[in-house]
Amino acid sequence: MNSEPVGLSDLAVFAPQSRLSIATLAAKRIQENPDLQKHLDRALATTGQQAMRFPQLWEDTITLGAEALRTLLSRKSETQRLGLRYLTMGTETSVDMSKAGSSYLQGLMAKTDFPLPANLASFQVQQACAGGSLAALTLSGSLKAFGHFGDSAVVVTSDIARYTAPSTAEVTQGAGATALWLETSPQLLEFDLDSVGLFSKDVDDFFRPLGSTTAKVRGGFSLACYHEAFLEAFADHCRRAGVSPQQELASIDAFCLHVPYAQMPVGALEKLFTIHTSYSADQIREHLTQCGFFESLVPAAQIGNLYTGSLWLSLAWSLHERSQVWGSRLAGKKYLLASYGSGNTMAVWTAKVAARAKAV
Amino acid sequence: MNSEPVGLSDLAVFAPQSRLSIATLAAKRIQENPDLQKHLDRALATTGQQAMRFPQLWEDTITLGAEALRTLLSRKSETQRLGLRYLTMGTETSVDMSKAGSSYLQGLMAKTDFPLPANLASFQVQQACAGGSLAALTLSGSLKAFGHFGDSAVVVTSDIARYTAPSTAEVTQGAGATALWLETSPQLLEFDLDSVGLFSKDVDDFFRPLGSTTAKVRGGFSLACYHEAFLEAFADHCRRAGVSPQQELASIDAFCLHVPYAQMPVGALEKLFTIHTSYSADQIREHLTQCGFFESLVPAAQIGNLYTGSLWLSLAWSLHERSQVWGSRLAGKKYLLASYGSGNTMAVWTAKVAARAKAV
Repeated sequence: MNSEPVGLSDLAVFAPQSRLSIATLAAKRIQENPDLQKHLDRALATTGQQAMRFPQLWEDTITLGAEALRTLLSRKSETQRLGLRYLTMGTETSVDMSKAGSSYLQGLMAKTDFPLPANLASFQVQQACAGGSLAALTLSGSLKAFGHFGDSAVVVTSDIARYTAPSTAEVTQGAGATALWLETSPQLLEFDLDSVGLFSKDVDDFFRPLGSTTAKVRGGFSLACYHEAFLEAFADHCRRAGVSPQQELASIDAFCLHVPYAQMPVGALEKLFTIHTSYSADQIREHLTQCGFFESLVPAAQIGNLYTGSLWLSLAWSLHERSQVWGSRLAGKKYLLASYGSGNTMAVWTAKVAARAKAV
Repeated sequence: MNSEPVGLSDLAVFAPQSRLSIATLAAKRIQENPDLQKHLDRALATTGQQAMRFPQLWEDTITLGAEALRTLLSRKSETQRLGLRYLTMGTETSVDMSKAGSSYLQGLMAKTDFPLPANLASFQVQQACAGGSLAALTLSGSLKAFGHFGDSAVVVTSDIARYTAPSTAEVTQGAGATALWLETSPQLLEFDLDSVGLFSKDVDDFFRPLGSTTAKVRGGFSLACYHEAFLEAFADHCRRAGVSPQQELASIDAFCLHVPYAQMPVGALEKLFTIHTSYSADQIREHLTQCGFFESLVPAAQIGNLYTGSLWLSLAWSLHERSQVWGSRLAGKKYLLASYGSGNTMAVWTAKVAARAKAV
C-alpha cells in the first residue's frame, strides 16, 4: 500500500491530420438540401463547433491510439516502460467484439522502439465517453492499493465519432486519441481519489447498436442527462469530501469537463454556479473566464468530439494554457474534472497540480 | 485507505434452463455429415464437455446477467445495497457498441425489489474471457485504496458462447452469468492483491469480428497461448510474492482456472507441476484430486463455456464442494485463481478463504 498521492504524470494527444471546417460541411449540406439551413444554423450556434478531424482510410481506432501511445512512450525511460503493469484502452469504437484494443496496441508497440513488457494486464473499458476516465480512476486505485515500487499504468483513449449524414449531429463529429501515464507521486496531477463523486442511470440518450457505424443520439435529452448527472455527481463528490458545495466551488481554480461539443459543458457549469452561489450570469462567466475554462474548450471546437479522450484533450490544453497564465503558481492549483458517458455514468473529482508540473 | 483485506464476499450464478447434451448434438451433426465423425469424436474426447446451456429467444446477455445480479442482491440488506459504488459488467457478448451493459442492468434492477443507488460508477470491461476478473481485481484495488466505510462493488459476468455450425468448436458452446460482491473484510475470499501475476501478448487465438455473431477460434493455438500465459503469469506472481515457484505450489490448497472446456486447464496445471516439482504424472493427478481440482471442472463440462464467468462458476462450485470435504478446515485455505482472456491476457493470483466462508 502506497501512502504517496497517485494520478497523472504525463499525457499525449494525437488527432488525425485530415480536417474539415464545419462551415464547409454545412454549406455542402445546405446546397444539397436548402431545408437544412435553419437546423444547421442553429446547430452551429448552439454547439460552438468550428472544425473536425477525421481519419483517413488507413486509420482506425487502433492506429490513432498507437500514435498517441508511441508519443507518450517516447518520453519515458526504458526503466519506466518496463514498470508498466496495466495497458488499458477506453473506447466506444471497438474493432473487435472480444479482443481488447489494448492487445493490438501492445502488438504495434512491439514493432516500434518502445516495446512494452509482457507482464502486464491488458483490457478495454466501455462506457460511452467515460471508459478511459473510469479506467484511469480505478487503475489509480490499484496502483495505490497494491502497486510495487516503479509500477505504472497507461490508459489510451481512442475514438471516431460518426453520425448519420446529413444530420445536425454531424457537426459534432471528430476523431483522435490520448494516452495517459498514471503512477504514484505523479508529475502532473494528484487525484483526490477519496472523494470521487459518481452518478449513473439507465438512459438512452446516446447509443450505437450492433452493426451500425453511426451512433444514435437524442441531442436535447442527452444535454439534460449530462446536466443532471453532473449536478448529482458533484453533490456526491461534496458529500464524500465532507464539504459544502459552496466551500468546494470556492476552492477550485480550474475546470475541465467532458466536451462533446464546445457549448455543452458551459451550460452545466453555469447551472452549478447558479444553484450553489449568488453570482449573476455575468459574474459566473467572468469567474469561469478567470479560471481559463473557456480556453479549455478551444481544442474540442477545432478537433471535434474525441469521446473517451474529450476530457483529457481539454485537460492537456488547459494545463498548457494555465502554465502560461499562472507560471510557477500553477503548482498546487485545484482542478475539478468531470467525465460523462451516455447511457449513463458521470465521475466528478478534484486533482491538485503537482509541484513539478511546470517542467512537464 | 483501508488496512483490511479486500475480496469476494458473495457469488451468484445463473445459467439458462435450455440444455443440450453434447452427444445429441454430435449425433445430429454426424447424421448430417458422416465425415464429421472422427473430428467430433476427437473433440468430445479432448474437451471433456458433456452438455451445454443455451439462451431462449427472449434471453440475452443482459437478462442472464440480471438474473444472477437479482439473486445476489436478494441476499443483501438494503444498507449493503445502498453502499454499492461500482456496477461493472464483464462480457464479450455486448449488446451495444457504446452503452455499457451495466447501465441496462441498473435499469432492470430498478424494476425489481432491489433497486440500486444512483451514486455509483457503471461500466463494461472487455478482454475476451478475462474482463470480469480484471474488473474484480482493479475494483478491489479501488475499494482498498479509496473506499469509504460500507462501500462495495459488484461485477456481473455474462456471456453467450456461439461458434460456426457445424464445427468442432460447437461442443464448447455455453451460456450463463455470475455476479460477484466485492468489499473489504470479505466473507468468502481475501485476495492477495500485492502479488497478482500478469501476462499479456498480442495474439489472434480467438476473436469475434464486428458483425459476426460467432467467434473465430484457432483451437490448438489458443491452447498453446493459454498454457504459455498461465506459466508466465504464475512466474510473475511468484516474483511479486517473493517466493519460489516450488514454495508457492507447496502452499496452495486448491486451484480454480478459467475453463473454456473441462480439459483445457488440466494440461496447464500438469505442465506447471511438471516444470516446478519432481512429481510423476500420476502423482500430479493424485495431488490435484486431493485439491478437488477435477471437481471444479464439473460445472463447465455440464453448462459449457461461460467466457467471463467461467472462472467464477468453477470457484463457486469448488467452494461448495470443498466446504463439504474440509468442513471447518475450509477457513484459511489458499486458492490459486487464474483468469485467461484470448487476445490475450492472463491474471494469476492467490486468495485466502475467509473465516466466515463456511456460513456463506
